[in-house]
Amino acid sequence: MLGRLSRLGQKKHRDSEGLFLAEGLRTVTELLQSLPDLSMLHALVIDEKAAEQLEGLERFRGKAWLAGADDFRRLAQTTSPQGVCAAFRKPTGGEFRPASARSFVVALDDVQDPGNVGTIIRTAAWFGAEAVICGRGTADPFNAKAVRSSAGSIFALRIDTTPDLAKTLRRLQSEGFTVAAAALGGHDYRDVPEWPARRALVIGNEANGISAEILALANRKLLIPHAGARPAVESLNASVSAGILMAGMALRANDE
Amino acid sequence: MLGRLSRLGQKKHRDSEGLFLAEGLRTVTELLQSLPDLSMLHALVIDEKAAEQLEGLERFRGKAWLAGADDFRRLAQTTSPQGVCAAFRKPTGGEFRPASARSFVVALDDVQDPGNVGTIIRTAAWFGAEAVICGRGTADPFNAKAVRSSAGSIFALRIDTTPDLAKTLRRLQSEGFTVAAAALGGHDYRDVPEWPARRALVIGNEANGISAEILALANRKLLIPHAGARPAVESLNASVSAGILMAGMALRANDE
Repeated sequence: MLGRLSRLGQKKHRDSEGLFLAEGLRTVTELLQSLPDLSMLHALVIDEKAAEQLEGLERFRGKAWLAGADDFRRLAQTTSPQGVCAAFRKPTGGEFRPASARSFVVALDDVQDPGNVGTIIRTAAWFGAEAVICGRGTADPFNAKAVRSSAGSIFALRIDTTPDLAKTLRRLQSEGFTVAAAALGGHDYRDVPEWPARRALVIGNEANGISAEILALANRKLLIPHAGARPAVESLNASVSAGILMAGMALRANDE
Repeated sequence: MLGRLSRLGQKKHRDSEGLFLAEGLRTVTELLQSLPDLSMLHALVIDEKAAEQLEGLERFRGKAWLAGADDFRRLAQTTSPQGVCAAFRKPTGGEFRPASARSFVVALDDVQDPGNVGTIIRTAAWFGAEAVICGRGTADPFNAKAVRSSAGSIFALRIDTTPDLAKTLRRLQSEGFTVAAAALGGHDYRDVPEWPARRALVIGNEANGISAEILALANRKLLIPHAGARPAVESLNASVSAGILMAGMALRANDE
C-alpha cells in the first residue's frame, strides 16, 4: 500500500495508476473540502496527531490509514508532510469541450515550474476558468509541488494535457474562442474594451515566453505595461502576469 | 573570506555586515546588470565554467574570486548555485521619504514566505513603486530565496524594514498618502475611479491577511472579486493578488 503510494512521486506511475499524491494538512484539507464525490479519494494516510486535527474524519472510514514516522519518511516528496498524505483520483474526461456559450480557458505553453503551474490553476479557479490546458513542456499539474500550490482547486475546473497545444487552440478558435497571448510586442491589455463570451489566455515559458507557432495563431497579443521611462526589472513572474491578465479577461458577474 | 560569506546565510550576519548573498548565474547576472555603482558589489565568487559564461567579467577585477566545487558546497544556501555566488552591499538610506509629489509604495504586513516577498518586490519594481516597506513578521527581503525571486530588482527601489508598520503608514498618511489594504470585506478594486498621486498598498499574511490595527487605519479596503456564484477556491496566492492590485493602482505613464 505505502510502496504503491510512494511511487506516485513519479509521473509515469501517476499516469498508469490514475492517482496523484497530496501532502500536508493544509493541502489535503483543501482537497478534501472540494472533493466532488467520495470516490475521488483513494487513500488517506495520517499519523495520530493529524487524526486529531483533521475534521470529519469519520467520512473517510475504510480509506484512512494510521501510519508512523517511518512510513511518512518513505512517502514524503516534499520537506514537511506534517503527518498527512492522501492519494486522490486524477479527474478525467477526454478532450475538453466548453459546456456553454460562455467559457474562459487558460492554456499553458511550456510553463516549467510546478509552483507556477499550481498557482495558475488556483488563480484560474478563482476567476471562473472552465479549464486549464497544459501543452508540451509544461510541468505535470499533479506533481506534489504543483498540487500544493494549487491550494485545493484541482477539482474546481477541468485540467487537460495535450501533446499539440497549437492544434487544440485552433480547434477552440473554430468553436468561437478568441485566443489571447502575453507577448512583449503586444498591446496594452487594459485597452481591450470587451472580450467575447469564449476566450482563452495562453501563458508561456518563464524565460522564453510563448512559442512562435502559438504567437502566430493568437487573435490578440497582450502586454502588461510597466510604469516609468524604462522597466526597472526585465519581466514579471509568470504566475503574477497570468493573474493580472486573468483579472482583466475573466468572466465578470455582470456578463451575460 | 568564504567563511565570512557563508555566514551571510543568517540574517544577523547580513545585518551586522551590511551585505547579502545572491546565488546562481541568472540571479547574479540580473543584480550585476542593475548595480547602481560598482561599490555595491562586495565579492563575486565563480568557478571556471561560470567565468566563461559571465559577460564583462573584467569590470569586476579585484572583486572576483575563482573557487572550486568544495568552496561552493560551503557557500551555497540553495540547491544549485551553478558555480556563481556574489555578495552585495545592502542598500541603506534611513527612513523612507517620498522623492516627489507622486509616489507609489508597497507595504508588507507579516508576509512570511521569502518567495512571496521577492516576487512582490519584483512586481513593485515593474509597476514603478518607489519603496517596499517590510513590517514585523515579514521574511527578510535579503534572504537567498527572496533575492532569487526578486529577479535583480533589489537595487531598483527602496527596501525598508520597520518594527511598527502601522506607525509608518500613519506617517505616510500625514504626508498625503492614501493607504489601501486587501481585505475580504472590501470593495471591488476596479471601482476606484482615480487614485491620488501618493498611494500605498498593504499586502497581508498568506493565511491571515492584514492585521486588525492596519485594517483599521486603511483609507480603502480592496477586494478582488471571484467569478461565478461562489469561489471555487478559498483565496488567491499573496504574490498574485499583490500583482493584480498593483496593476490597478500603479502610476500610469499618462498620470501627471
